[in-house]
Amino acid sequence: MSVSVPRSSPLASARLTIDRAALAANYRIFCDLAAPGCRVAGVIKADGYGLGVDQVLATLENQGCPFYYVATPDEALHLRSLTRKPVAVLGGIYPGAEDEFIHHNLIPVLNTPEDLTRWREQAHTHEIPLPAILHLDTGMNRLGLSAEESAALQPDEFEGLNILYVMSHFTSADNAASPATKRQFDEFSARTDALPAFKKSLCNSAGAFRNPAYHGDQIRPGMALYGLNPTPETDNPMQPVVRLSARILQVRSVKKGQTIGYNETYSFDKNTRTATVALGYADGFLRSLSSGAAPCGHLYYNGIACPVIGRVSMDAVTVDLTPLASLPVQGDMIEVIGPHQDADALASAAGTIGYEILTDLGRRYHRDYL
Amino acid sequence: MSVSVPRSSPLASARLTIDRAALAANYRIFCDLAAPGCRVAGVIKADGYGLGVDQVLATLENQGCPFYYVATPDEALHLRSLTRKPVAVLGGIYPGAEDEFIHHNLIPVLNTPEDLTRWREQAHTHEIPLPAILHLDTGMNRLGLSAEESAALQPDEFEGLNILYVMSHFTSADNAASPATKRQFDEFSARTDALPAFKKSLCNSAGAFRNPAYHGDQIRPGMALYGLNPTPETDNPMQPVVRLSARILQVRSVKKGQTIGYNETYSFDKNTRTATVALGYADGFLRSLSSGAAPCGHLYYNGIACPVIGRVSMDAVTVDLTPLASLPVQGDMIEVIGPHQDADALASAAGTIGYEILTDLGRRYHRDYL
Repeated sequence: MSVSVPRSSPLASARLTIDRAALAANYRIFCDLAAPGCRVAGVIKADGYGLGVDQVLATLENQGCPFYYVATPDEALHLRSLTRKPVAVLGGIYPGAEDEFIHHNLIPVLNTPEDLTRWREQAHTHEIPLPAILHLDTGMNRLGLSAEESAALQPDEFEGLNILYVMSHFTSADNAASPATKRQFDEFSARTDALPAFKKSLCNSAGAFRNPAYHGDQIRPGMALYGLNPTPETDNPMQPVVRLSARILQVRSVKKGQTIGYNETYSFDKNTRTATVALGYADGFLRSLSSGAAPCGHLYYNGIACPVIGRVSMDAVTVDLTPLASLPVQGDMIEVIGPHQDADALASAAGTIGYEILTDLGRRYHRDYL
Repeated sequence: MSVSVPRSSPLASARLTIDRAALAANYRIFCDLAAPGCRVAGVIKADGYGLGVDQVLATLENQGCPFYYVATPDEALHLRSLTRKPVAVLGGIYPGAEDEFIHHNLIPVLNTPEDLTRWREQAHTHEIPLPAILHLDTGMNRLGLSAEESAALQPDEFEGLNILYVMSHFTSADNAASPATKRQFDEFSARTDALPAFKKSLCNSAGAFRNPAYHGDQIRPGMALYGLNPTPETDNPMQPVVRLSARILQVRSVKKGQTIGYNETYSFDKNTRTATVALGYADGFLRSLSSGAAPCGHLYYNGIACPVIGRVSMDAVTVDLTPLASLPVQGDMIEVIGPHQDADALASAAGTIGYEILTDLGRRYHRDYL
């Protein structure tokens, strides 16, 4: 029930603005960063990290993005109708899904020796070369072949297959101090050296910033395309893509001694002006932003932080207007994500990461694509 | 991108089952519970608490539900094309939205004296009686008129308006021990006695269970319709509505000393079998279910709890299979919400409430409506 309406709609309870030019600029940052000969794929799973995959795809297509990654077969099927570029499925190929992959020209990431065997058998049965990406696990222990499994591979096990890339995935590239990144690169290099000469793809957003030597033949940025910070130890090198503001439903005068919200978790020690905002956990404004935890969430009015008070409810959140010299009125919009608070900062207040803020972006928001 | 497909689809990464008969039965529980003459409205905001408002509406229509509540004008507009029953907007009427409310016959909940004035002026201008619900705040401090504001109302301020109900909302009805519920009822009774003789609506799901004396002319169940427990101090009196299972992408053998997931937050003290499941925070499996916090989340295979290990990632979660005598294989489904773990229990492990689990239910799930 995502709604597309004129920007001035009086019905919008919250407004999400997605800056396609910033998304395009972020893609170009990776193109400029990439080592010579290395290509830049786009990771657009989870509805383009919550921003709307159709618009994200169109933007990256305009930038010449040559290759896309998604998580699930359904996501790949959806893209299949929108682009002729290769689309790879990170979650791999479930037993029984082979025909759909072949029929729609989807590329499985082969995560196990059994996946490799099944896909090779399909190539033999259909007498066509089938594309695939071979995934070596180097420490995530989530998906991919173990060291023993890849060491046991024989060259003839790739017969009939077109292995586009051999890939792995960093566990800790966002942490500049972690020794895991170089250790994973070294393991990946050694293990791929023992395989036929496939192209290599190792870097996520953060990994691409760490060392051009890690880039190989393809980097796979995701989060940083959408404006999240891939290198938390520095200022964010990416352009902001997302802005979110929500409607003030009511400005209230609350008396000393009263409480606010479900289960009366917050009591006022003085008479206080509050605002009730049309934004709740059903919109992805996580309930962990409630007051009581430290830190709680904040919304920004005219650039000034107003703390959440009481519990975030399904469709509304209440904030303390005490910091404001000039009060808002009913119907005004208040900043949730924007110049004064990016998605990473909001996530930090919620005890999570910016990715979860983006993928939770609500379906009730009116969406403007600039 | 919610997908409707045959139940046997080999492409489903996760499967959400919604039992419409259970939803209907839960509605009837409230009809049986309601005091004589009291009607049972349906609260179907936030896409029917995440279950799909079109299907929820159709189910309640079949039960004769006479009245619906939503949170936003957009939600009401959507319903307007699907039912001729009254639809009230809890978030109220923003300045400038009046024409849309009149044109589409939406019912505003009037939360402020200014709302009442503006809506009355519309009635005078258009020379038609306009329907509304008057909201008195009795302790939430979220929306509605304060005690002073409602005491100042004069009978002629309702001229031209058809006040269908005067309402308030409980803060703590889920807590049987809270004195707030009776206190709010008493305040509501006293304040409505001072107004013209409007019909009254006070009870949410939990409130309706607390005391038939609170029911008035209309109760407004929400969460309990969808199977959440309105009376946490007792066994859940409602029928379960939601089941969710997710695909096992890979079964792995992890060695002692290795780690799992992003930032290596979990280390294995013995060789361990793990499963990687196609379910992540982008699907509403909250990142707060990661291990490290106490308690972490669990998934159930053949009724046996397998704890989450490492961090929940965007599209995947890993669990420890040690408790299992018989291991799953790639492609098997594992229970997320079902007979062994309801939404309330999953919420508890995530440090939140069942409502947030439901409203976060993912768009990538294949949905079966029984």
